[in-house]
Amino acid sequence: MASPPTYADILSAAERIRGRAVRTPLMAAPILSELTGARVVLKPESLQRTGSFKFRGAWNAVQALGAAAVRGVVTCSSGNHAQGLAEASRLAGVPATIVMPHDAPAEKRLRTERSGARIVGYDRASEDRDEIARRLSAETGAALVHPYDDAHVIAGQGTVGLEIADDLEAAGLAPDAVLVPCGGGGLTAGVALAVTERFPGVEVFAVEPRGFDDYARSLAAGERRANDRLSGSVCDALLSPAPGELGFAINRERLAGALSVSDDEAMRAVGLAFDALRLVAEPGGAAALAALATGKLDVRGRTVVVVLSGGNADPDTLREAVTLYRGSLAAPPGAAAS
Amino acid sequence: MASPPTYADILSAAERIRGRAVRTPLMAAPILSELTGARVVLKPESLQRTGSFKFRGAWNAVQALGAAAVRGVVTCSSGNHAQGLAEASRLAGVPATIVMPHDAPAEKRLRTERSGARIVGYDRASEDRDEIARRLSAETGAALVHPYDDAHVIAGQGTVGLEIADDLEAAGLAPDAVLVPCGGGGLTAGVALAVTERFPGVEVFAVEPRGFDDYARSLAAGERRANDRLSGSVCDALLSPAPGELGFAINRERLAGALSVSDDEAMRAVGLAFDALRLVAEPGGAAALAALATGKLDVRGRTVVVVLSGGNADPDTLREAVTLYRGSLAAPPGAAAS
Repeated sequence: MASPPTYADILSAAERIRGRAVRTPLMAAPILSELTGARVVLKPESLQRTGSFKFRGAWNAVQALGAAAVRGVVTCSSGNHAQGLAEASRLAGVPATIVMPHDAPAEKRLRTERSGARIVGYDRASEDRDEIARRLSAETGAALVHPYDDAHVIAGQGTVGLEIADDLEAAGLAPDAVLVPCGGGGLTAGVALAVTERFPGVEVFAVEPRGFDDYARSLAAGERRANDRLSGSVCDALLSPAPGELGFAINRERLAGALSVSDDEAMRAVGLAFDALRLVAEPGGAAALAALATGKLDVRGRTVVVVLSGGNADPDTLREAVTLYRGSLAAPPGAAAS
Repeated sequence: MASPPTYADILSAAERIRGRAVRTPLMAAPILSELTGARVVLKPESLQRTGSFKFRGAWNAVQALGAAAVRGVVTCSSGNHAQGLAEASRLAGVPATIVMPHDAPAEKRLRTERSGARIVGYDRASEDRDEIARRLSAETGAALVHPYDDAHVIAGQGTVGLEIADDLEAAGLAPDAVLVPCGGGGLTAGVALAVTERFPGVEVFAVEPRGFDDYARSLAAGERRANDRLSGSVCDALLSPAPGELGFAINRERLAGALSVSDDEAMRAVGLAFDALRLVAEPGGAAALAALATGKLDVRGRTVVVVLSGGNADPDTLREAVTLYRGSLAAPPGAAAS
């Protein structure tokens, strides 16, 4: 499909991923509730197969290819979509080629290789990853599964929002705000589509790394704006050139706004997730939690859903994050405290 | 109460902990299912408040004290019950004193202190922790909340089993086996009581550290047998002198058996939990996962519940465990592979 997905497409995706993706829990987080004065619930997609939400969209896209999948799939990704698509392909018995930057985290490269995918390296600063992926697709007949500018991918990521809505309803809760880590905007679009459909009054916020606030500027301008840089943040999972076209068409209608967090705030949130919740988050995956913990939004007395979008951090990053976080406990104001 | 708790006591405990303890998810673990040929579901109590199931029993015991709680509580614990009781006491506004060995993990001591508890150190080899706790109780009037030989504590831990049963029923599943990390046997007893009540055919296994198989020997003998040692395993959370009296009364009737795992197997399971599931487990908390991953039980084609009982590991332990686990992937047979 060349037009943005609909809520019905998310329902279809939910059928496709059933039994394949993990139905991640929606968890009460009393520690975060005490910290913020809000009722905080977490959607930890770190517990998803491959350690991030990306498996959902990848699986949905591969399944949607039908017989065409036999010629394989190709994509560009620094790591999480790479792992998601590689694993979806392995399970579907389809060859996968991943265009991955040379500076991708070793942890993500290792995990992508394990699923049997072929990795083609490129230089983030001098080469165009989309161009390389398109060329490989033309050469081999493999289908291009874009990490976020793909309707099936967005619909698959939207199942995160669908599960949030289902679980909130079952608990008799209505959310006031939903915070989502945002790179190209596929997850944000899918979640926004699902939760605003089910809870028309809810405010959905994209959370970006500081300096990579293409969504904030695009929303303000009413049209897509690019980032100045393509690297230079610990939130490697959120570094996209610009909002995807399909996702932006949804997000411009459905988002309440965009927030941004510094690298230090993202790292402290990784430490907070580990220290207070025993959850493994990567810096980009913890962006929404960072926005919550540092008071980027007034949430007192409200019900807030925080999406923890990925957990592909290595133990050294965790240790650094825990040290930073614990150091910040002694240094108010503004720092998160447990 | 001086007699073992009943299923009704677990239901009462569930009422008491509602909204205070985290209702941890029962999660499908497709990676583990592929690894073992079983349908594996996980109950990650690492995601519980204070990072282990211990908060449940502690909160239930403190609440059951009623007005008597005002004089405070005292206990002996190397760390997880310490944190659980300290946090339960903080929330209840009650002073807590914890008798903790000098060699308790720094991570656990730090987290116990944070909840405002007073810590009294002792030497594991030369001093009797129960004796010290009893003396403190007599001196101050504080109520002794034993880590496992307490009916309210066991009933609280039983809510883990109750939630497992509720969630399995909701999913239309019946378990064939439930594997539970076992130290003094309070969690094992509570879980066994709940799940055998709800699924009479289920087999519940206690999983102990090798060399600390007091439960295996006690079950074989039909009466309680002590361990030879009180220290010397990475599974610090599971090192108890002997089965508790109340728990053993339940477990001798309800357990299908006891399994044991080596320190190396427990550490690899910590690595597996991190690497494949992005869950933080401590070695003792991963004992049941270790038993599953190393084939201690033939589970092919069966539905198996694995309780991950605690996640209070520090990042250095995680790194060591991940390195061990990944090293083992290259070295079959018997080693877990992803």
